[in-house]
Amino acid sequence: MLILASKKALLSRLALLSVLLFAASFVQAEKTYKLKLAETWGPNFPIFGDASKNMAKMAEEMSNGRLKIVIHSSNKHKAPFGVFDMVKSGQYDMGHSASYYWKGKVPATMYFTTMPFGMIAPEQYAWFYYGGGMELMDELYSQYNLMSFPGGNTANQMGGWFQKEIKSVEDLKGLKMRIPGFAGEVLAKLGAKPTNIPPGELYTALDRGTIDALEWVGPSLDLRMGFHKIAPYYYTGWHEPGAELQFLVNSNKFNSLPEDLQAILKVAMKAAAYDMYAHSMHESGENWATMSSEYPNIKVQTFPEPVMTAIRQANDELLKENAANDPFAAKVLQSQQAYMAKIRQWTLMSEKAYLDSTQ
Amino acid sequence: MLILASKKALLSRLALLSVLLFAASFVQAEKTYKLKLAETWGPNFPIFGDASKNMAKMAEEMSNGRLKIVIHSSNKHKAPFGVFDMVKSGQYDMGHSASYYWKGKVPATMYFTTMPFGMIAPEQYAWFYYGGGMELMDELYSQYNLMSFPGGNTANQMGGWFQKEIKSVEDLKGLKMRIPGFAGEVLAKLGAKPTNIPPGELYTALDRGTIDALEWVGPSLDLRMGFHKIAPYYYTGWHEPGAELQFLVNSNKFNSLPEDLQAILKVAMKAAAYDMYAHSMHESGENWATMSSEYPNIKVQTFPEPVMTAIRQANDELLKENAANDPFAAKVLQSQQAYMAKIRQWTLMSEKAYLDSTQ
Repeated sequence: MLILASKKALLSRLALLSVLLFAASFVQAEKTYKLKLAETWGPNFPIFGDASKNMAKMAEEMSNGRLKIVIHSSNKHKAPFGVFDMVKSGQYDMGHSASYYWKGKVPATMYFTTMPFGMIAPEQYAWFYYGGGMELMDELYSQYNLMSFPGGNTANQMGGWFQKEIKSVEDLKGLKMRIPGFAGEVLAKLGAKPTNIPPGELYTALDRGTIDALEWVGPSLDLRMGFHKIAPYYYTGWHEPGAELQFLVNSNKFNSLPEDLQAILKVAMKAAAYDMYAHSMHESGENWATMSSEYPNIKVQTFPEPVMTAIRQANDELLKENAANDPFAAKVLQSQQAYMAKIRQWTLMSEKAYLDSTQ
Repeated sequence: MLILASKKALLSRLALLSVLLFAASFVQAEKTYKLKLAETWGPNFPIFGDASKNMAKMAEEMSNGRLKIVIHSSNKHKAPFGVFDMVKSGQYDMGHSASYYWKGKVPATMYFTTMPFGMIAPEQYAWFYYGGGMELMDELYSQYNLMSFPGGNTANQMGGWFQKEIKSVEDLKGLKMRIPGFAGEVLAKLGAKPTNIPPGELYTALDRGTIDALEWVGPSLDLRMGFHKIAPYYYTGWHEPGAELQFLVNSNKFNSLPEDLQAILKVAMKAAAYDMYAHSMHESGENWATMSSEYPNIKVQTFPEPVMTAIRQANDELLKENAANDPFAAKVLQSQQAYMAKIRQWTLMSEKAYLDSTQ
């Protein structure tokens, strides 16, 4: 009986254990990973905000709910330009922002968004994925416990809204313009006065003459800002030919994910970035049709050739100065310039020749 | 004892059942789905073949091996232009091909690859994903138990290699040119003689004068064909401004997959298609640099304006004829033309203005 009893007890325990293991196997299969993402933008910011939502949705569906990405907009974390630091430290697992915002911290980050007179979006994607761009971005960001990935392209950005026509380089002198970052430094070299004004105050500033000009993005995001109602000149772009946003991931967090979820996250980010390029194209096409039919007198202009030449010279000088102070910046710049010298020839004989000959 | 025995037996059975369930839960989690894909191309065909391999690799990694896609090239299935039928019937689960190959079977399929004088790749992706293109493609293909997805863009294709300069519409008369499909019909309207010659015989045919001209793709795939060694003129493109390949999926098979694998398959196809566009850009940039440095006398030319006008007129007439015979074709054409009328304005004031003003 004793033996029988202990056999019985053994079987009973075995049964219990098996039931527990059975349950555990589901828990294992269903183990969820929740990643917190901080975005630089406010809640429901069009196109940019859609890109991170699109990414999170794809990741959740592909992982059958095992990978959940919770998005905090800037109203929640209150630190739109703290995304780099918050993801680096692990306060957030991911970020959605733009690499050139970190140039004050790490100068060479600037080259991974877009460069004045640089590559257009399809050229830049080719550089990232087939021309060594991703490897350079990895090399830079890995020093900060971060991984950086393309996060969505705005397509070619417009040069901005101007109250007065720019007829010569002289007209740039003293021009008060909202144009942040490197492009602002370029124009400052030619005597312009770049100013920084919060987005919510831009319309009034342009309307009341506090500033003479401003650049925002392009029709995709400019329409809702209303600048077309108060400024007659819409200049074509030179400074952000293919601005690529950025997904940031904390390296430790990424490495702690199972391999399939790492793959899911990477492909979801990649597809969402490409999708945003198509989305930006779409919104700009639609919104320009709206703007130009409601305000048919908007003058789309290109800076005269001498002005473009002066801007390009100032840009080249500034690039040279930056590269002289930073070997990594010099390396990235060299890679981009060598790549662009080749691929631009192709763009000119393919898309540009096509557009020229079929209008 | 009887009761005891049966309790023991019950426990024993419960234990066995639990162990089996435990094992089964792993089998369930590890259940693999193998999909067979037939591609139109031969084995290791560059860029196109890389796109389906890239898709299969992403799907396998993201699914932790649960979704395996086995690729059969044309040397295996012997039916490069049987892909539509083989996927429709379920002989294959998937295909990698191009929608315009099926125009003899279903005329309106033609519009989902590229159209002469039509959209460039970024415009067309915007149309597919944000402008109603996917919905129209679904509506058409679902009638054949098929799902069709973008499968990779070649970027703008070149107009082809010519032995003689085309100076007037007169020069097209009697011109023997390898240019298949709709574009061949367009040139035939102007007196050209489109011929079809197997790829392996093209070089000799062009060299010996069996044909006067041919179009293939662009530098990305033309380099290995060697045409630049024997033909002096490389004409810019008009007939395939953004050729998008196609992933086909058998609808029944797709619906039989678990939801997470459906999501994985769709995102893997989407990312691989976009990737191929970047890959094509890259290879064309690199290969044109090679071609033009080894053969600096290649003349890149655009057809004179009266020739382009005549080609466009012939194209418009043919499009009208096609639409008159096929209400669905008319619907797709109307969607594309209305979309392009908007988005091309944006392309001209953004990318084209940028390329014009910064050369």
